[in-house]
Amino acid sequence: MDRDGAPRVGIVGGGQLARMSAAPAAALGIGLRVLSASAADSAAQVIHDVHVGDHDDLAALRQFATGCDVVTFDHEHVPPAHLEQLEAMGVAVRPGPSALFHAQDKIHMRQSLTDIGVRCPRWRVVSAVDHVVDFADETGWPLVLKTSRGGYDGRGVWTVDSAEQAADVLSVPLAPGSQWLAEERIDFVQELSAQVARSPLGQAVAYPVVRTVQKGGICAEVVAPAPGLASARAVQAQEMALRIAGDLNVTGMLAVEMFDDGHDLFVNELAMRPHNSGHWSIEGAVTSQFENHLRAVLDLPLGNPAAIAPYSVMVNILGGDVGDLYSAYRHVLARDPAVKVHLYGKQVRPGRKVGHVTVVGDDYEELLRRGRHAADYFAGVIDE
Amino acid sequence: MDRDGAPRVGIVGGGQLARMSAAPAAALGIGLRVLSASAADSAAQVIHDVHVGDHDDLAALRQFATGCDVVTFDHEHVPPAHLEQLEAMGVAVRPGPSALFHAQDKIHMRQSLTDIGVRCPRWRVVSAVDHVVDFADETGWPLVLKTSRGGYDGRGVWTVDSAEQAADVLSVPLAPGSQWLAEERIDFVQELSAQVARSPLGQAVAYPVVRTVQKGGICAEVVAPAPGLASARAVQAQEMALRIAGDLNVTGMLAVEMFDDGHDLFVNELAMRPHNSGHWSIEGAVTSQFENHLRAVLDLPLGNPAAIAPYSVMVNILGGDVGDLYSAYRHVLARDPAVKVHLYGKQVRPGRKVGHVTVVGDDYEELLRRGRHAADYFAGVIDE
Repeated sequence: MDRDGAPRVGIVGGGQLARMSAAPAAALGIGLRVLSASAADSAAQVIHDVHVGDHDDLAALRQFATGCDVVTFDHEHVPPAHLEQLEAMGVAVRPGPSALFHAQDKIHMRQSLTDIGVRCPRWRVVSAVDHVVDFADETGWPLVLKTSRGGYDGRGVWTVDSAEQAADVLSVPLAPGSQWLAEERIDFVQELSAQVARSPLGQAVAYPVVRTVQKGGICAEVVAPAPGLASARAVQAQEMALRIAGDLNVTGMLAVEMFDDGHDLFVNELAMRPHNSGHWSIEGAVTSQFENHLRAVLDLPLGNPAAIAPYSVMVNILGGDVGDLYSAYRHVLARDPAVKVHLYGKQVRPGRKVGHVTVVGDDYEELLRRGRHAADYFAGVIDE
Repeated sequence: MDRDGAPRVGIVGGGQLARMSAAPAAALGIGLRVLSASAADSAAQVIHDVHVGDHDDLAALRQFATGCDVVTFDHEHVPPAHLEQLEAMGVAVRPGPSALFHAQDKIHMRQSLTDIGVRCPRWRVVSAVDHVVDFADETGWPLVLKTSRGGYDGRGVWTVDSAEQAADVLSVPLAPGSQWLAEERIDFVQELSAQVARSPLGQAVAYPVVRTVQKGGICAEVVAPAPGLASARAVQAQEMALRIAGDLNVTGMLAVEMFDDGHDLFVNELAMRPHNSGHWSIEGAVTSQFENHLRAVLDLPLGNPAAIAPYSVMVNILGGDVGDLYSAYRHVLARDPAVKVHLYGKQVRPGRKVGHVTVVGDDYEELLRRGRHAADYFAGVIDE
């Protein structure tokens, strides 16, 4: 316990999700510690209590967790066996290792969702091209091949249109413990994300369902709530997310990414932490996903997830040719005094998420124009 | 300059104002350093780059300022001569020493405001009881006696009703450089605060004018905007604040506390930094006072100061008998999922500002009830 009875939360991973958790932790007076691979990482620049160490180094994890009341995550890469060791030390790990494993292994996730009756794209574990061809006889081409572990932001995911292409993908070496997963390609009209927070006591709240737009497998834009989504469909998505959180015993934030094919919803991915599709909530909701994640893992009563305005739009800033993001401020901030900018302190590399902008208001198309303009200016795509 | 061209801002003082500046600094990707009297101070707990040292130790100030692009303040206590030394080092000091001196010396402030024609309570420098009695012949009793330097949160201010009471006050020893100031007591109908941000380039924005309620000289509550304040009167208050900021060459946030006697406005105090009367802006405005202070001292374009809802109410949490503030969370957060809590990580002492709560919505009387309930529960004044 920290001063005045406040607990300390430890976040494994020093990325932008940990960085954005610092504001609500400071507001709530909660101690915050980060385990960061480097002292220069995004979160390590702004959080006071930084441990430098690797997430797969058990000794570093144990030292980091000593003095933390709860350990939670910026990413899903910590080996489950290490987390069980932390639990054995008496530290609460939230989400727990068995829940988190669903976000670490896509085959385990697909099996559990299938077991509890949640609709997913048709899927099959494959290890050779003829398995893929057999599967394609049922689903048709193109289909999707994924590695069961280690992929994110479009890495580890391929769309293939033929046995030849499948053979090329299957020749990529797999990481230890990883397998190939073939999935039906859903011809979606939009992608959605349904986020919920759930506490160990079982209290849960559902955020407005948002539309996400991916480019090259990376989230590019989010509109909250999803424009034109029928109320019944939005409630269906929220119910699916609440059911998954409960049945899989998730604690903290859960993001359920879904395909909407115009008739039904299919679960694509799960993330058990704050998620890019919820960054809009910092300015756009009464309680941000970062605050509710902290509240949930501490088993505090959850905050109101309602939107404060008709629409919020978030646009990611992807690294471009301009290394000096700060130089864009004079133009971006003067052009739009209401745009909210978040830069993550990350070295700019082409295509890397280095920040995001959020705009809140009534007309989502206007908000999209403003958000895209600001993000494009940071990325150097436009210069006026 | 920090990584990726971002500058570093140094804040002198480790109180809650520096602490609440951490969130917008991290969002904007601006480097933040704090000079804190102790490693346990409010801001030092949450900011990564902490220098421990005293604000009146020139060597500590110089070491702290080395590597900062701009130095600004959590409080007004730095000796002006020290600030001139920092400027001589090539560090931008914002607000500059000559502007800041108005917030350090109430006689200097009264003289400058009088010179530029801003209405204040009648005032006179006094050094003996007969001066006070002469002044009272013009203004009547009671009147207000203040020390010109060093007072805050009701300290250094007395209301006296007679020559005998004045004599008692004047027997209090003055700090070096301080003098006695006698002021007319304004029979006000409400107290207002008008906040503006102003950049070195001269851009300025005005926040909605708020009503403040003081108890025992300490700010207790703020309602934004001031309920029932006529639009013309609000504009008058904003114009006064903008004029003072311009004429006194203030950079950063300026708070102008005013008395409204139902007929006219009288300037009470100035603060050249984020101010308790603007804490509502974290959740209640598009751009918080903390973000606009950073933008202003960096000479970046200022953010939109508009309110996001009809009303915001802020209630301070004053220390009571309960040392463990965290223990109140289970009740406070469950009772009102939309209340926003800010705890400052400060040791609880009776009457000390240890946090605040903000609620945003349509009906300010309902918001006041909710805000007071949460603050009273933290303070231990109520237990249900």
